[in-house]
Amino acid sequence: MTALNENLVEVIRDALSTGESKENLPRILEDLQPFDLANILPEFEKSEQLNLMSVLPAGKVADALEYLEPVQQYWFLFHLGEPFARKVLNGMSSDIIVDFFAAIHQRQADRLFQWLPEEYQTKVRSLMSYPENTAGGLAIVEYVSARKNWTAEQALAHVRKIGNEAEIVSYVYVLDAPGRLVGIVSLRELILAAPKMKLEEFMNRNVISLNAYTDQEEVARVFGQYDLVALPVVDKNSRMVGIVTVDDVLDVVEEEATEDIQLLGGSQPLDAPYMQASFFSLYRKRVGWLLILFIAQAFTSNILRHYEGVLSEVISLALFIPLLIGTGGNAGAQASTLVVRALAVGELNVGDFARVVWRESRLGILLGLTMAVATYIRAVTIGGSMDLGITVSATIVAIVTVSSTVGAAIPIVGRKVGVDPAVLSAPVITTIIDSAGLFIYFEFARRILLIGQ
Amino acid sequence: MTALNENLVEVIRDALSTGESKENLPRILEDLQPFDLANILPEFEKSEQLNLMSVLPAGKVADALEYLEPVQQYWFLFHLGEPFARKVLNGMSSDIIVDFFAAIHQRQADRLFQWLPEEYQTKVRSLMSYPENTAGGLAIVEYVSARKNWTAEQALAHVRKIGNEAEIVSYVYVLDAPGRLVGIVSLRELILAAPKMKLEEFMNRNVISLNAYTDQEEVARVFGQYDLVALPVVDKNSRMVGIVTVDDVLDVVEEEATEDIQLLGGSQPLDAPYMQASFFSLYRKRVGWLLILFIAQAFTSNILRHYEGVLSEVISLALFIPLLIGTGGNAGAQASTLVVRALAVGELNVGDFARVVWRESRLGILLGLTMAVATYIRAVTIGGSMDLGITVSATIVAIVTVSSTVGAAIPIVGRKVGVDPAVLSAPVITTIIDSAGLFIYFEFARRILLIGQ
Repeated sequence: MTALNENLVEVIRDALSTGESKENLPRILEDLQPFDLANILPEFEKSEQLNLMSVLPAGKVADALEYLEPVQQYWFLFHLGEPFARKVLNGMSSDIIVDFFAAIHQRQADRLFQWLPEEYQTKVRSLMSYPENTAGGLAIVEYVSARKNWTAEQALAHVRKIGNEAEIVSYVYVLDAPGRLVGIVSLRELILAAPKMKLEEFMNRNVISLNAYTDQEEVARVFGQYDLVALPVVDKNSRMVGIVTVDDVLDVVEEEATEDIQLLGGSQPLDAPYMQASFFSLYRKRVGWLLILFIAQAFTSNILRHYEGVLSEVISLALFIPLLIGTGGNAGAQASTLVVRALAVGELNVGDFARVVWRESRLGILLGLTMAVATYIRAVTIGGSMDLGITVSATIVAIVTVSSTVGAAIPIVGRKVGVDPAVLSAPVITTIIDSAGLFIYFEFARRILLIGQ
Repeated sequence: MTALNENLVEVIRDALSTGESKENLPRILEDLQPFDLANILPEFEKSEQLNLMSVLPAGKVADALEYLEPVQQYWFLFHLGEPFARKVLNGMSSDIIVDFFAAIHQRQADRLFQWLPEEYQTKVRSLMSYPENTAGGLAIVEYVSARKNWTAEQALAHVRKIGNEAEIVSYVYVLDAPGRLVGIVSLRELILAAPKMKLEEFMNRNVISLNAYTDQEEVARVFGQYDLVALPVVDKNSRMVGIVTVDDVLDVVEEEATEDIQLLGGSQPLDAPYMQASFFSLYRKRVGWLLILFIAQAFTSNILRHYEGVLSEVISLALFIPLLIGTGGNAGAQASTLVVRALAVGELNVGDFARVVWRESRLGILLGLTMAVATYIRAVTIGGSMDLGITVSATIVAIVTVSSTVGAAIPIVGRKVGVDPAVLSAPVITTIIDSAGLFIYFEFARRILLIGQ
């Protein structure tokens, strides 16, 4: 906690304890951002928190609650007293309300749902029908809509009236009678238009909209392409469901990247930030993959057992096992990671399979030849024969080529058959390559060193 | 290319070839998004592209050019004829102009710079003084500013006048005479305010602003926290430099994640999308790390050579080498990846070092004990003795514990000493663990199997 915050906590605590200055609190905290308000809450006793919240305007409390967990949100709504709590609930964003209702007990949700105005209930219920990771799941209903036969003047008056509830009033969405999205007018255009002009005369009819079931990764891609602040979401009948705002997309992009990174690191994605995740959830998310990889990798023992004779004949062969399969694993990790990310951000798709494989196989040969020089030097400096040097050098060319090619190919195959490419991640590929690499190594050794015949 | 686009290309080509319908093109393409326009350009011959661009409004051409590479931007500006090209250049966003000037030849940049209006030159020059990956480098100057003694009416008239050039008109920034940011008014507040009211009477004085030198990762964090559409950027004297808009932050978040993922995969970050990156740039970005990791890993050969006597006495020990160090590597990759990502998104910081290490060491023991069971079973099913089973099981507990602890600790140490934690990535840790793991393995073997004494 910063010194500034510590100071603020003192000021608030003083004000809460002396009756008369309590009424000054809304003024003192007027400029405090909701995020910061939510952040200093844990510094207070539960009773102080309630005391503080009850003197602030409901809208401010609602904004701060948006940053808390559902269980804490419920605790406040339950303890703040129904009349005030109703206002707070109504002041919260619809996407937060949807997540909140989904997280709490069904009976509690049903009761609180009745606190919402009827029209709002319908909209929120519609939002609740879409899966969390779709455009519909990300949408909010705090947008300004208008009819196409309204004049600019009428629409502007409407913005003035309900603009306070709308999250982003950069655009007015023009709907027809059944609620279908037929046009869009920017607030700037509205201000600039002649007051008596009808919206249909100057609205943009070619609206980019998102289908409610569009996956959130695709949503992020569309936002990235068009550089927009908000996009409307429509159902299969073109009826307006809500809008997705770019700040929520920012969260999606971060989350998706975190998930991919955790998968690439060979762990199930965590449900919570690292420090908040419980010890046993960390254990569960990791032990599964470790065991799967172990089982896949266990095959290396069989291969080594098969070549035990070769190995006992030339024990020096063992010296290079970690180095050879380690380098193969690194080359495979490079290729697969680059391809997984390129697939995730839409730079690559399944149709590029042949081009990628061709490219990575040539790259693998070139990288392998480079590593062969290093490997040969290593083999002779540690006292190996020239033949041993040739064996390990030839092996590394083959291993790096196979690794790069397989590493790049597997994520694309995954995408093709509907498996998240990040799941077929570096560790999985490393594991495959370990076995293939040992096989290549000992077959080369048998032929070049003329042993185990 | 989709069927729709193919169709559009035909329509445009027809219109370009017959004189009279050429003038219909602006109307035909009225609803086409700039991004889509930029995307269909490569379908046309160079001369057709020029032909097409020259009939469209300069603002539309400018928006489409923003999606092209600097070399293509220059080509169009050079060939479109100065009067029209001037308008196009002036229609481009200031952040794009800054990147463009930085990418082209200094002499060309100087000449084109003269095409900008004088006031704009000053602003663009100020933007150009900040490094690319700072708030100043991300900022644009297309914002609406006003003076605090203006009335709401005056400010609104100003928005009407220059709003067209501003990228986001959700906010009006209130500046004093020396250009210092003293307040902010949302467009909604402006519409709602009494026309004669002065801005200073209702502006928000507690403005969240970014320092121009703030790193872009920090910028992304602030946007993520406050859920804002745009943030003002000020210099060290609180003078307004520009605004950063959330759509540019979206790009930053994607880029930073891509960079981290590529580093975690053991490759230098690419400068271009995977398919655009040249063959030799891919080679250069990857061969360096492969060699560094090879050199670090080469130490495993020394360790194995040191224990060659032990190994030749019990050749079965070799069977488990890939399995033991592979599992250690996987456990280390899990820990380091989780910690690297938590550091990147600000969930963890250097002060958490002790807590993280304590947590990961306990987790390592628990994961290690689980893997020990699997390892013991593997050892006896492949025909090893009970003592060999105990050796490999004890080894895996030690290796997984060390891997988890070291894997988690190293990225935090990296952050502390100013090295990007993603650079100290999974492959680096894997490499360290390979050597330490072999040492542990053979020391346990010597003691438990009573060999090599």
